[in-house]
This record gives sequence, C-alpha cells and structure tokens, in this order.
Amino acid sequence: MNVTSTNPRSGETRSLGITEHTVAEVADLAVRAAGASAPYAARPLTWRASLLGAMADALEEDAQGLVGLAQEETALSEARLRAELARTAFQLRFFAGVVRDGMFLAASIDEATDSPMGPLPDLRRVRVPIGPVAVFGSSNFPFAFSVPGGDTASALAAGCAVLIKAHPAHPATSAAAFSALERAARAAHAPEGLLGLVFGLQAGTALVEAADVAGVGFTGSLSAGRALWARANARAVPIPFFGELGSANPLVVTRAAAAARAEQIAVGAAGSVTLGVGQFCTKPGLLFVPSGASGDALVAALVSELQSMSGFTMLSTSIAENFRRGARRLQDEGGATVLVDGEWGEAAHISARLLQVDAERFRVGASLHEECFGPLALVVRYESAAELERAVRAAEPSLTFTLHLGPDDPDARWLIELGAARAGRVLVDAFPTGVGVSWSMQHGGPWPATTAPSATSVGAASIERWLRPVTYQSVPAHLLPAALRDENPLGIPRRLNGRLELTS
Amino acid sequence: MNVTSTNPRSGETRSLGITEHTVAEVADLAVRAAGASAPYAARPLTWRASLLGAMADALEEDAQGLVGLAQEETALSEARLRAELARTAFQLRFFAGVVRDGMFLAASIDEATDSPMGPLPDLRRVRVPIGPVAVFGSSNFPFAFSVPGGDTASALAAGCAVLIKAHPAHPATSAAAFSALERAARAAHAPEGLLGLVFGLQAGTALVEAADVAGVGFTGSLSAGRALWARANARAVPIPFFGELGSANPLVVTRAAAAARAEQIAVGAAGSVTLGVGQFCTKPGLLFVPSGASGDALVAALVSELQSMSGFTMLSTSIAENFRRGARRLQDEGGATVLVDGEWGEAAHISARLLQVDAERFRVGASLHEECFGPLALVVRYESAAELERAVRAAEPSLTFTLHLGPDDPDARWLIELGAARAGRVLVDAFPTGVGVSWSMQHGGPWPATTAPSATSVGAASIERWLRPVTYQSVPAHLLPAALRDENPLGIPRRLNGRLELTS
Repeated sequence: MNVTSTNPRSGETRSLGITEHTVAEVADLAVRAAGASAPYAARPLTWRASLLGAMADALEEDAQGLVGLAQEETALSEARLRAELARTAFQLRFFAGVVRDGMFLAASIDEATDSPMGPLPDLRRVRVPIGPVAVFGSSNFPFAFSVPGGDTASALAAGCAVLIKAHPAHPATSAAAFSALERAARAAHAPEGLLGLVFGLQAGTALVEAADVAGVGFTGSLSAGRALWARANARAVPIPFFGELGSANPLVVTRAAAAARAEQIAVGAAGSVTLGVGQFCTKPGLLFVPSGASGDALVAALVSELQSMSGFTMLSTSIAENFRRGARRLQDEGGATVLVDGEWGEAAHISARLLQVDAERFRVGASLHEECFGPLALVVRYESAAELERAVRAAEPSLTFTLHLGPDDPDARWLIELGAARAGRVLVDAFPTGVGVSWSMQHGGPWPATTAPSATSVGAASIERWLRPVTYQSVPAHLLPAALRDENPLGIPRRLNGRLELTS
Repeated sequence: MNVTSTNPRSGETRSLGITEHTVAEVADLAVRAAGASAPYAARPLTWRASLLGAMADALEEDAQGLVGLAQEETALSEARLRAELARTAFQLRFFAGVVRDGMFLAASIDEATDSPMGPLPDLRRVRVPIGPVAVFGSSNFPFAFSVPGGDTASALAAGCAVLIKAHPAHPATSAAAFSALERAARAAHAPEGLLGLVFGLQAGTALVEAADVAGVGFTGSLSAGRALWARANARAVPIPFFGELGSANPLVVTRAAAAARAEQIAVGAAGSVTLGVGQFCTKPGLLFVPSGASGDALVAALVSELQSMSGFTMLSTSIAENFRRGARRLQDEGGATVLVDGEWGEAAHISARLLQVDAERFRVGASLHEECFGPLALVVRYESAAELERAVRAAEPSLTFTLHLGPDDPDARWLIELGAARAGRVLVDAFPTGVGVSWSMQHGGPWPATTAPSATSVGAASIERWLRPVTYQSVPAHLLPAALRDENPLGIPRRLNGRLELTS
C-alpha cells in the first residue's frame, strides 16, 4: 500500500512514493539493526555523544523544510513547530551530555573480600545496551515524540540501534526527519543498519514481533498501547515494552486559591487546555473547582476565555472524530453539563469544549474518567475537602497532578501527598503542558498513564529503559570492559566497594 | 484446606494447624498492607534501616529452631542451612546500609533556569515506594529467597509493605521465619499490616490479583512464573512483575583450559552441579567441553566424581518427579548419552546424573535446551570454536555464563563478549552457584532467565524494582519531601543542576 500524506486543514491527500513495509522487510531491517548493535555499542562514548550532537545539527540545518512539512501534515502553528524542533535538537544534545556524564552505566566494583557470608569474589557490574529498540512515534509531537524524539535519542544514547514506526498522521515529516538523522549517521561513519524507518500498521506489529527487536518505546493511546504491549508479552521471547499511554491530568484549584486569584487561574488553565489544540498528553483534562462565588467566577472566566477562541484543526480527521465521540460521551453517558459548545465541525475541524459535573456524580461516573484528547476540559465542582478527596481518588492515576494553592493553604499538604501517590509529576501554581528535558524530569506515572510506572520517557533517566546490567565475576583485568577497569579509563563516576566516587 | 508440612526424607506429613487463605482473607491483608504503606514510607530512613537490622537479629536469635525446621522440610544439610540463614541476616543488614546510603532515592534537583527550549521551572525528582509488594518464596532457599529473603528485604528497604506467599515445600519454616520478622516489627512499633503471610495456591493467585498489591517478586519455575506474570498483566490495573525463572547456566571449558587443568575443573564442576542437591537457579546445567584427550579426561573425572556421590534427597517428591522427567527427556527425546545413571529412586530420593551430547546434536535439539532442576548436567562436546559458538547461541540466555580459560587463551575475548550478550553474570575460572550479596551483584538476565532483564533480584540494585520516581515542579520549599529540600536534611547524594554531589 502506498503511503499518503494528508493535510488536515484542506483534507488534501498526496502520495509520497513510499510503499508500506511488509513483515519480511521489517524482519530484514531488524536483522540489520541487530548487526549494527555490537559495533555501535563498542564505539567510544565520546563518539556516541558526538553522533547525537551531529543529529541535532542536521535537524537544525533542515529546520525550514521540516517545519514546513509538519505544518502541512499537523495543522500546528509554525511557531509551535519551530519551538518543538528546537526542543528536539536540545534533547539530542542533552543526551550527548548524559552519555559523557557516564553515570547511566551505573558502574560498580566490589573487590574480592571476606564477608559474614564467607569470601566474596571480585564482582564488577555495568549496564549494557539491550539491543535494537522499536520506537513508535506519536501523532501529537511530529518531532519531540516522533522520529528524532526522546525515545530515539535515549535509545541511541544507551547504545542501541533504533527502528522507528512513522506515525501515519505525519509520514512526510517522519521521512524528512529520518533523512536528517541518517545523513548525520553516515557522515559519522556509524555502523550500517543503526537506524531504520518503517511505515504501515502491519509493519508496526511486525516490529514488535521481530525476533531481533529487544525493546519497545511507545507514545500513543491506551488502546493501541495495550494491544502492542500484549503482543510484546506474548512473543516466544517477551521483550520490555515502555508505553506512555495518556492521562486525564487532574488540576485542583483549592478554595483558598480560587478566593485569591480565580481569573488568573482561569486564563492559565484555558491556555493549557487548548495549547497545541489540546493535543498534549499532559493537557489538564479535569479541573476541580470549589463551589461558591470564587469558583463560579473562575468557571465564568474559563467559559469566556474558551468562547473567545476560534475554531481548531486537529491532527487528523480520525483524531477529530475521536474527540467528538469523547465529548459526546461525557455529555450523553456521563451527564455532564455543557458550558462551552462551539460547532462540532467537520473533518479535522472542531471547537474547544468545556463541560461541568458535580464531584459526587463524577465519583460514580466511570464514563467521566476517560481522557478526551483535544481542547476539552471537564470541570468538577466540589463542596468540601472530603468530597474533593473522594473525587480525586475516583479519577485515574496520571502523568501529572496540578495544584493551585492559596496563601498558607490548609489543603496543600494532603493534596501534594495525594498527588505524589497518583502521578509521576506534581505541580504547584503551574500548568502541566510543558515537559522540560532535564535531569529531574519524570514523564510517566502509574497505570493507565504508562505500562511501566518506574520508567520515564522524558529526561535523563529515560536512558535507563534501554539498558541491562551485567556483572563480571573474577574476570582478568585485560578482559574487562573499559568502564570496569581499575584505572577508570572512561573517567566515569563509579562505586568502589560500595562507596560512590566522582572523577571530574 | 489445612496446611501440611512434609519431611522429604521420610515422607512423613504433619498438619500445622493453619488453614490456607481464602481470596477474601488475602484481599483483607492487602487492604491492611496498603494502610500501612504511607505511614511506613513516612518513617525516617534511619528508622527503616534499624528495622531491617532488628529483623536480622531476630532471625539469628531463632537460628536453632529455624534451621531445625528447615532441615526437616527441605532435606538440606544443617551446615548449608546455617550458612543460608547467616547470609539472609547479612542481606537484611546490607539493605539497611543501602537505605542509609540514600543513593537509591536518585534524588535530583534542577533549579529554575533558562534553556535553549525556553525557561525551565524548578524540578525535583525522587523515587517513592510503589506500595504493597507480593513476594513468592522459592522452594530451594527456605531463607535467602523465601519469607525473610532478598525480595522481602529489598521491598522493605524501598519503603513497601510486604505480603509473602509461603512455598508449600517449607510451610513450617516460613511461618517461623515470619514470626521472627513480625516480632522485630512489633518491637519497633512498625505500622500494623506491614507484613503478611499467606498459604495456598489460590491465595498466591489472589495476591497477584488483589487491587491493593502494587508489584510482585517471584522466584521459581518458568511455567509458574509465566502464568502469574500473565495474571499481573491481565489485571484491570496491571502491576510490575519481577520473575526470576531459572536458567541452564552454560559453563564453557575452552580447549586451552582443558589442556591446562582438566581434573581440577571437573572436581569443581561436579561440586557446583550437586551443591544443595543441584537445586540452585545458578547450577551449571550445560558443560561445554572440547573433543580430544583433555576433554575426555575432564569428562572421565566428572564421571568419577559424580559416581562417588551417594544418593540425594530433593526438596519434595514432586520436585524429584520433575527431575526424573527432565532427565528422561534429555535421554529419550534429546538422544543424549547417559554417562552417570544411579538409581532413579523413589519419592524425593534420586541420584546425580550426567549426560553427554555432541555440539551439533545439541544445537538442533530443542528438548536439550530446557533447564533440569537438580543434580544433573549435560556435557556438550565440541570440535571447533565455530561449533562451540553455534552451540552456545542455540542454548537459551541465562542468569550466568561461566568460562574456564587457559593461559593466554585465544578464545577468551569473544567468549566473554558472547557471555555478556546472553547472561546477567559472566564468570571466569569460577563456579556460578554462589550469588554474593553486594553492590555489584547482578542476579537476572535476558528471557527466559527473568521477566525483566533490567532488574536484579540480588544485590543493592534489587531495591530499584520497588520504586517509582515522582517529580515535584515549583513546589514550595516547606511542602517538599525531605530528600528534595535545599538543605539536604537526609545527607544523601544528589544531583544538583545535573552535577552529582556526595555529602559524606
């Protein structure tokens, strides 16, 4: 089948002159990736870091063309796409720094010793790359969570070959971004087969099932993620699957916060709900607002903000259809009251929506708990702290949990503790839609936010998904990997007999 | 159903006056454990470390009784069981040290800053306990991998409540060890419900399916592990499952090693194959030996060593039946030649066995690749390095990969690399049956050795299985957890703006 690119604004479709990959072609790419794995992992860490930097450079060289293609395919704004591309290049350079830092290897040396268990031999432990990683690009971030995005960057940083499934919502952007990565890899004389790109639904399934694929990174919907995860587990040799599946992202406005700055919170929330047409996995989809005058003022301001926004174009017609279906479900099945209801629209065109429900109805209404991807939020009105707590506990765990607090807020502490128990990131007086690439970022959370709550798909620790430890016992010095030699030729932080040592 | 204890030597069975737990009882214990989780996690790390130390003390106080019960139930020797109990107490104290060290929290602070992506907010990341952990005790280590073993110690160290499924091969030992842990917990005024113990197959399944259980640690067979893992994944809310499933543990004797010290290697290998009646998950089950005179001498010495050993009693009659079945499969289906064949025996009584096959037959014989739990090894004779490599690649990945090398061995380097690609621990001129508790131990490996190749079930890093990171964004100082406050009140190593800092 031919790969086609659709402009969601116009509905126009063009053929890219690319054919979807067959199962045999995918298996062949996986064999090539497996062949590239050992030579790639054997290159010096400094070389690996340079490669990541060169890929960032290549993306920036191609920025004009990449942003243009992404504009056509996603209907996202030029400014947003330029910023996303800058972030994606930054992310590759950030991982070059993570590689140079060397702590990701978790190198540890225990010299032979006596213990209360008896003599212990010389033991040395280091993390090694798991092998070829399959990356499933997302619909909503054509760069940062797609071909050149965080999964690709972290897997390459870990020392793994990468096979990427292009998202059908932006195939031309995917092919062009892949070209930039490949150009950098060729210029650096990277091993043949280090990178691969496949198109097509069947190719994606084949990727998860290919014998030579050792792990999967996925960003997308709960249903698609769970289905692919089940395939990864059902293989003759199951492989680790890291799925970032989406999330309702509760945002709680305390009574004290509403009293202090209802309008300000409403303006910020409306911006966060509609940022990137609401197509962020961290979009705050549930807004818990107190009853009473301040809460009413906040909701009124939200309504006015959202009504003032003109129509939106989603990433694709099918995503827009899901949005309409999700919005109708909240209204018809969930019994939510509609506060903002623009045109339903046609094809990929929709309007922002705001709905409202009281906390007790929310608590018992399972159909109100599902994420609705797009510029929509459900306001949940609560009377008391006890009612708020029950409603928050009824919502599903999530990627983020946001609090807006008042001065000396009596509800601050228990809400922060509740948030930390139910999400991967807890924010105060902020909005969750920005996910900074940094050492301390956590982008993940308990089910259904992710399939692996201990993992993150953004930030330095996301490299850990693609590594596996190996201990060398009584291995002669000259046969040890460099990271574990006494003289520490890589100059990396290590544990020596349990004591952490820095070297820089 | 009543819980009964069986003496595998005599076959005698006695009732313990305990009833197997119902699904409702298990759910109730899980609710109690969930209730204990937050208060337990909130206790100071120093208190948590002291509790682990007190549990070690309690086990040592009860050593006489515990070892006696375990002798009756497992037929393992007193010396072995005393050593295992010492190791188990050491392990609890070791985890007290891991807790005090604080690096397991992976605390990281990024102060607000500008970046090429734009302004980044204040981000602080720390690992938090996942919640109640279900531990499945193993048959073969009544202490070190059972009630008071590594999964329990690491989960408690992580800050999680623990619910343990007692192995039916040693219920009285399990109950007595649990009493010791409970006594220590009570004396330390630990939260009610921190520890739970359940008996029965149905109770084990219920534990994996209990809504309040957040993760599973399992040590046991591939079939049982895979079945429970599937249940963990099929839950409405899937939970992480860490299964250590067993392994064939290849041991390669190079041509140079055989030429240098055939007899010495044979004596060591025979000891390792039969240690603890061959009931180690790290038992070297595949011995790759070169063709020719030195290899013949090695095999002859192995035969003589194993023939000189008297009969063995396995942990239970059903385990002995599996052993006989596995041995017969190697012989009948696999076409292996029998070199040592004592009595098949009755009930739990068996004899050590040695079988042999050539490398080419091994490569194509799938029935020769399965682990046979017990005092049995399969000798695989190879002609050339190429034949050796093909045969090793045909074997399944494993917990360990052992090499015996000669002086300036030409086969050393490629075999170490191959081993690191196929196992979690690579040993040189050693035997894999000892698994030391240390910072640098890795006890895990690619499928089918474990369900999670990035995890270890022994050593400091095993604590990581029970933790999940949370990032605090723009959270006011007084509302941050202690690990993330500027002044570092816990005195733990942290990253500050990407730079690792020690504090001791």
